[in-house]
Amino acid sequence: MQLIKAEIIAIGDELLYGQIMDTNSHWISQELDLIGVKVVRKTTVGDRRDDILAAFAEAEKRADLILITGGLGPTQDDLTKPLLAEYFGCGIIEFPDAVAAVTDFFLKRGREITPLNVLQGHLPSCCTYVPNEVGTAPGMWFEKNGGYWMSMPGVPHEMKKLMKDFVLPKLPEIFELPVIYHKVVKTVGIGESWLADLIRDWENALPEHIKLAYLPSLGQVRLRLTAFGTDQTKLTAEVADQIDLVLPRIRNYVYGYDGETLESATGNLLKKSGKTLALAESCSGGYVSHLVTSIPGSSAYFNGSVVPYHNQFKQYILGVSAQTLESKGAVSEETVREMAQGVRKIFGSDIGLSSSGIAGPDGGTAEKPVGTVWIACAGEGFVETRKLQLGQDRLLNIQITAVAVLNLLRICLIQNNK
Amino acid sequence: MQLIKAEIIAIGDELLYGQIMDTNSHWISQELDLIGVKVVRKTTVGDRRDDILAAFAEAEKRADLILITGGLGPTQDDLTKPLLAEYFGCGIIEFPDAVAAVTDFFLKRGREITPLNVLQGHLPSCCTYVPNEVGTAPGMWFEKNGGYWMSMPGVPHEMKKLMKDFVLPKLPEIFELPVIYHKVVKTVGIGESWLADLIRDWENALPEHIKLAYLPSLGQVRLRLTAFGTDQTKLTAEVADQIDLVLPRIRNYVYGYDGETLESATGNLLKKSGKTLALAESCSGGYVSHLVTSIPGSSAYFNGSVVPYHNQFKQYILGVSAQTLESKGAVSEETVREMAQGVRKIFGSDIGLSSSGIAGPDGGTAEKPVGTVWIACAGEGFVETRKLQLGQDRLLNIQITAVAVLNLLRICLIQNNK
Repeated sequence: MQLIKAEIIAIGDELLYGQIMDTNSHWISQELDLIGVKVVRKTTVGDRRDDILAAFAEAEKRADLILITGGLGPTQDDLTKPLLAEYFGCGIIEFPDAVAAVTDFFLKRGREITPLNVLQGHLPSCCTYVPNEVGTAPGMWFEKNGGYWMSMPGVPHEMKKLMKDFVLPKLPEIFELPVIYHKVVKTVGIGESWLADLIRDWENALPEHIKLAYLPSLGQVRLRLTAFGTDQTKLTAEVADQIDLVLPRIRNYVYGYDGETLESATGNLLKKSGKTLALAESCSGGYVSHLVTSIPGSSAYFNGSVVPYHNQFKQYILGVSAQTLESKGAVSEETVREMAQGVRKIFGSDIGLSSSGIAGPDGGTAEKPVGTVWIACAGEGFVETRKLQLGQDRLLNIQITAVAVLNLLRICLIQNNK
Repeated sequence: MQLIKAEIIAIGDELLYGQIMDTNSHWISQELDLIGVKVVRKTTVGDRRDDILAAFAEAEKRADLILITGGLGPTQDDLTKPLLAEYFGCGIIEFPDAVAAVTDFFLKRGREITPLNVLQGHLPSCCTYVPNEVGTAPGMWFEKNGGYWMSMPGVPHEMKKLMKDFVLPKLPEIFELPVIYHKVVKTVGIGESWLADLIRDWENALPEHIKLAYLPSLGQVRLRLTAFGTDQTKLTAEVADQIDLVLPRIRNYVYGYDGETLESATGNLLKKSGKTLALAESCSGGYVSHLVTSIPGSSAYFNGSVVPYHNQFKQYILGVSAQTLESKGAVSEETVREMAQGVRKIFGSDIGLSSSGIAGPDGGTAEKPVGTVWIACAGEGFVETRKLQLGQDRLLNIQITAVAVLNLLRICLIQNNK
């Protein structure tokens, strides 16, 4: 079975000058790794003719698949398209479908199209036009001297859509790819090393052809099982068996699998139980609401939220008692209790969640330093609270608080559905 | 004046397979940019002999300065050190200072040193040993055929310390450095191609040593001016003059410069004008609140927000009239007007912002398709509204709406401070 070699070329001065972090190459690497295509080189060059042409020539020698991002804007500093035409020795001509698509893109948005944008529908005659449904710069696919080339915009969501819709489905058609099966088990509320201790002997007993990877992120750890073989069905069953083996030890921390997120998983729990949700977010400042409402169909279970950024609003809007605020302070177990219960009433929801803390960098005291956060989950006949002691970084504190709030929701829903 | 060209080589399979994001190259780019060293290429290769040697040979042809990260661990898959010795044709010998330093590193931490770690003090005889005070893998400096090479560990804080303590101070001694000055002009509310049309003749008239780049992101375009020369003060003045020249044409779209964000810029406008803010977010679902509260000190001007995710709450909490909701619908100019005015009252704020729309993927109608969004900004004696016609992607619609809401706030604050 052949080894497919890929090279990723990122084009743009802003990447060389460190003004933009190249997250595209990282994402593409992960996607290719999942289907067994080996990235052998990543190259970043600036907006200069000779450097770009040199990168093309070098990549052609090394790789079977060459994925190019950036340099496709309508402006003068964008050179990728003309240089691809030059490199492959073909002229740039009008692609009527591409012109129609870019025109339609602007019409749909009620905006007038400029001559510059019309030109985005003019492409190298030797490329296959790949429609970009979320932007104005088309994708371009080339097949030359036994190599395959794809040129994509540098805007991450445009590149990702072209990869998902066109490139990734196409690769199995043109290459004989190895059989790899991945399953990701998503955990929350336990650190990487504790998790590793819990499952070490299971991990050590895994068969040779099944690999485990720990992929930690904020407050979460993803366990990725990768099985290599020849029979997809067999691999799928083997991995399922391994998960059944380990699940009893980590069940309380597992919220989902693969593409599931904490917000989608808790959303599904709410749907299944027919319960509705409301949020009172102080230190998380609306971020939990954003996560919940980022899920399509969340209006089925999400009633709404209040961000009471000053004590007076915790009192007047949410009905937290003046005495509680006075005696215990805004960042206290009692306050988040009353916030969660209050927001439940306002929105007539089954569940109320709340957060109050000192996100930083200012506002800390000796007794309640920056990073002190209280969260609560209130429902019919119960209120659960947790205290978090986080770090100094404001944005991290907000994000970790949101994960903890959603995990507390998950725990409450499971406990109260038993 | 010579132009100093640098290449960054990152070594490690974990970078190619997407297990680790290469933040080192980004940081190094930023540091070199500040002192006027031009990064002409970034290369990432895996832990394979031929690939690494090829990267060395290519880099030597292109660059005066070659900075290498990674592949310096004590294990067998770390090849950088032996391959540097091979490439420069010198043997690996014991460097007593280096062995003492790595031994000391373990003693200080009460850990026993292994033979493998002792070998980390053995280096190519043709390198200059550069002590690594925060790790066990030494830095290695080479001067060969007029080129300068530095090999550093891939652990970010170790690499950064070696760069700050040794490399960055050394460069001005060995190179006659040019001066590069960057200024980024941040615009919002105009597309890249419209902006380009507005300023084309100005762009074409820029002097040879001042380069313009368009850096687009969701709903925003950053204009980066880069000036090359010898006199920082002169370049700073020249760029300032160019910005003064172009500003009259684009003033309405410019919200800030360099590190400013739309949320920090609007936050500063609120602070300056002594005005307070409240938000009523329907389709943006709390995301604008999150952006506003991500800024340290935002509690000085942000009172709070309500996310009324169903009509009944737009009515009961924000006081939108039943008749408006009945006759015009939740996604209408009248509704966002009343939402913005209502949330102003509730939080007693000077400014009220609101959003209501169909984020998708469901909920669209022929008359109001997915992507239809209304936003409003209400203040003492004024209400400004805008209609947006966005795409099909829920998350993008939320993010672009947030940018439009903050931009409408910016416009209202500027108009009403005149």
